[in-house]
Amino acid sequence: MNTPTLFESITNYQQRVDAILAKKIDALDDSATQLKAAMRHGALIGGKRIRPFLVYSVGEMLGVPLEKLDQAAVAIECIHAYSLIHDDLPAMDDDALRRGKPTVHVAFDDATAILAGDALQTLAFESISDPSSPLCATQQLQMVTALAKAAGYQGMCGGQAIDLSATDQRIELARLTELHNKKTGALISCAIELALIAAQANNETKVALTQYGQALGLAFQVQDDILDITASTEEIGKPQGSDEQSNKSTFPKLMGLQGAIECANQLIEDALSALTNLPYNSQLIEKFARYIIERRI
Amino acid sequence: MNTPTLFESITNYQQRVDAILAKKIDALDDSATQLKAAMRHGALIGGKRIRPFLVYSVGEMLGVPLEKLDQAAVAIECIHAYSLIHDDLPAMDDDALRRGKPTVHVAFDDATAILAGDALQTLAFESISDPSSPLCATQQLQMVTALAKAAGYQGMCGGQAIDLSATDQRIELARLTELHNKKTGALISCAIELALIAAQANNETKVALTQYGQALGLAFQVQDDILDITASTEEIGKPQGSDEQSNKSTFPKLMGLQGAIECANQLIEDALSALTNLPYNSQLIEKFARYIIERRI
Repeated sequence: MNTPTLFESITNYQQRVDAILAKKIDALDDSATQLKAAMRHGALIGGKRIRPFLVYSVGEMLGVPLEKLDQAAVAIECIHAYSLIHDDLPAMDDDALRRGKPTVHVAFDDATAILAGDALQTLAFESISDPSSPLCATQQLQMVTALAKAAGYQGMCGGQAIDLSATDQRIELARLTELHNKKTGALISCAIELALIAAQANNETKVALTQYGQALGLAFQVQDDILDITASTEEIGKPQGSDEQSNKSTFPKLMGLQGAIECANQLIEDALSALTNLPYNSQLIEKFARYIIERRI
Repeated sequence: MNTPTLFESITNYQQRVDAILAKKIDALDDSATQLKAAMRHGALIGGKRIRPFLVYSVGEMLGVPLEKLDQAAVAIECIHAYSLIHDDLPAMDDDALRRGKPTVHVAFDDATAILAGDALQTLAFESISDPSSPLCATQQLQMVTALAKAAGYQGMCGGQAIDLSATDQRIELARLTELHNKKTGALISCAIELALIAAQANNETKVALTQYGQALGLAFQVQDDILDITASTEEIGKPQGSDEQSNKSTFPKLMGLQGAIECANQLIEDALSALTNLPYNSQLIEKFARYIIERRI
């Protein structure tokens, strides 16, 4: 059997998590059809499913069957989807397009978008605590805690708040790094943490993969900032230069475009070197790390 | 030792949950001070803490020490607080006052209010999965599931969506009942469910207290509708007649004021009769049920 390429793996995991997520939303009753449609729109608007990819790929690398990773993959994508819906609202970033499609508040309305985000956050915790999960209660509970820490004030929500308060002002590199470590990095690291919990990994493995995840998460954001300048509107699915227009601090603004490219490269080197002593076949997640800075979308 | 009165018990439980909630929010780091302040404002704006009261009073009645109920009480109040913050937003009910104080988006801004609600929902799940809890993992996990079901599409969020879609139109009594069973009833029933999980109650007790909770939850909403017409602005802490002005369907509109009063009375009779065969001292929660329809705020 040939080893699947990175893109085959990304597509396989993406299709798997999308199918489970669609089934979960479709299974909801029809008492609030507008809300249900908005949840579906927001959760299934497309995207590479990077967080589920990390749950699945790290989990499989550590020998965990996919069935033990499904609810974690769904849950982390629900959290990500809810955050995009709320971030796109007029009161926040006011974005009308996401992945080339109308955002939830544009396709529906603001109130429905707020509720769809709220309900998707709840669905994340419902998924991860699913009583039919093949994981034991202790593992599931550890996952609830990990997901809540990554999503809440200490993580993603706090990062978005720092981001909003930093708009229209120049912030220091340390603060920008903190912002993105929380806003984007926390959930990316959490994807790996969920896989580590499912695998009941030993401490050495935990330390190495946590380093990998932290470097990867920050590299991802630096590359996003680079793409906002260098990629076309069609490639990124939202107006090119939108960070520039909204007066946000970005890595290229603080360190120059070349400096940001070097920073992203160095972070990926750090991510890769964290994997060198692991007794697992880490080829897939190595390729994924390189892809993070090579991608155009 | 004298048995505490209902109001002493309400005050005791209220102070207990408020102290834990304040401590939890104050313990967050100061990386996003505005968001932290908004969470505090929204979560500690006052109120009788009816949901924590039910967690504590039902739990104590079943012999559970308060320490085993604290995280559940905090979590359910965080969910309630987040829902109020989001419901008050201009895109939703557009309310400027809550319990006589400015709502979160008025005291801060819309974006911060959205994030504060989001982060309080997350805090609910973080609290209930707290690794230092004296409950076992299975109980905590059951609580996560119960809270998610009550808060999400099948419960509170779905109820709010039905409520929004029903504004400016007359809906049938069955739909109005479904709306409130989800929007308000689900979380009130969940408070009792959390206590039942902490107590590892037997099936007979579960059935009886679930009936009590369902009747109580609906009676609570019917009484709210009655108070919107009959109580003063000072008493209810928001403009008197605001349901009327916002063109919402209410129980008094569909069944007349006298019909609504009789309906609330009957629901409380149902709640009380569910308790008659329980082998526990249910005096406190009986008094509480009567209070629900006697209250003026």
